[in-house]
Amino acid sequence: MRLRYVKDADKKISAYPQYILNISRHEHFILNNAFKEEKPLHIEIGTGKGQFIHTKAKQYPDINFIGIEKFNSAIIKALDKVLVEPRKNLYLVRMDAEQLEDCLQSDSVDTIYLNFSDPWPKLRHEKRRLTHPDFLKMYKTVLIPNGTIILKTDNRQFFEYSVMAFHQAQFEFETLSLNFHEDNDPKNIMTEYEEKFSKNGPIYQIKVRYQEEK
Amino acid sequence: MRLRYVKDADKKISAYPQYILNISRHEHFILNNAFKEEKPLHIEIGTGKGQFIHTKAKQYPDINFIGIEKFNSAIIKALDKVLVEPRKNLYLVRMDAEQLEDCLQSDSVDTIYLNFSDPWPKLRHEKRRLTHPDFLKMYKTVLIPNGTIILKTDNRQFFEYSVMAFHQAQFEFETLSLNFHEDNDPKNIMTEYEEKFSKNGPIYQIKVRYQEEK
Repeated sequence: MRLRYVKDADKKISAYPQYILNISRHEHFILNNAFKEEKPLHIEIGTGKGQFIHTKAKQYPDINFIGIEKFNSAIIKALDKVLVEPRKNLYLVRMDAEQLEDCLQSDSVDTIYLNFSDPWPKLRHEKRRLTHPDFLKMYKTVLIPNGTIILKTDNRQFFEYSVMAFHQAQFEFETLSLNFHEDNDPKNIMTEYEEKFSKNGPIYQIKVRYQEEK
Repeated sequence: MRLRYVKDADKKISAYPQYILNISRHEHFILNNAFKEEKPLHIEIGTGKGQFIHTKAKQYPDINFIGIEKFNSAIIKALDKVLVEPRKNLYLVRMDAEQLEDCLQSDSVDTIYLNFSDPWPKLRHEKRRLTHPDFLKMYKTVLIPNGTIILKTDNRQFFEYSVMAFHQAQFEFETLSLNFHEDNDPKNIMTEYEEKFSKNGPIYQIKVRYQEEK
């Protein structure tokens, strides 16, 4: 999602270390330590303006949530939501998804959400897609055995690519929907993007499970 | 596809044993022997009125084709096409798909086509779906190692079911398209149904490969 440049975003982020952290390249943090209470951990990669993860955190107080976003211009919108309604079980992180493995303990994540990820349609950008085999390998490291990945997107080609990638990486398919809104899951929480664009066509969803081979 | 009752269909079928065979329940035939020349074998299960398989047979003279259809009211339309333009490499069979294993040699089929199969949406009819695990097991028996199944449908729920079923049966995914006509394969041959209904929504397609475990 392209957002307007936000002046002093970095400064604002660094003013609220209790809610948000800016992790630069080559910095290592153990994000699992961000929470006082130990609970199952769910993370959203590409959390954008944070509506999804903030709503989740309100609805599921017994789960710890981490929202990860690369662009500070997006994540300060999420920070604004947290400043209005703080949640002890939600932590925001501005970092690149590639650093995931360095910042999360192995076998520590219950669920990974990928919501309307950038499809990176050009083949030369394939490695940036959040379901590229390199990313899936990283997810396997941080997920607990039987941990799940739940992906939602309106981008057909990205969905096709992701289904193929999950299949090849031997994730187990749990559910698959080619018109998620029609299937009408009452518990679905929409992202800002989803609210805006889902009238244009179907929302695809897949939920996969990592059956540990270790 | 529901078709009008056709009077004397059985009689007409039995008049052209060089083109078509009516196999009743508990009858066994080795359909591989229907061709004088040995060539790779492709079969369509649920061949309907035969436009797809007849066109295929014309375009690919170096492949033998068998069109299988349960309803004699449908397959006599296919027979009509053959009577106008006979093909040495095309044979039609009126039989139930459940008899497949009894009528085809093991390891003998290169490609299975499933075009717009009856989705049998009710759960109590699940066993009749042509991608039910019992059918997939049968396909594995008749397919050669590395043989493929190519499925096209406009029925979303049947497609979702089939993708899950292929995945669970450990077929390898080769291609997956959630809008096959938009992806515009110039070699696509449309079925009668496809021509009529594809304006209503996307055509889904998946091509899977059977990696022999034997």
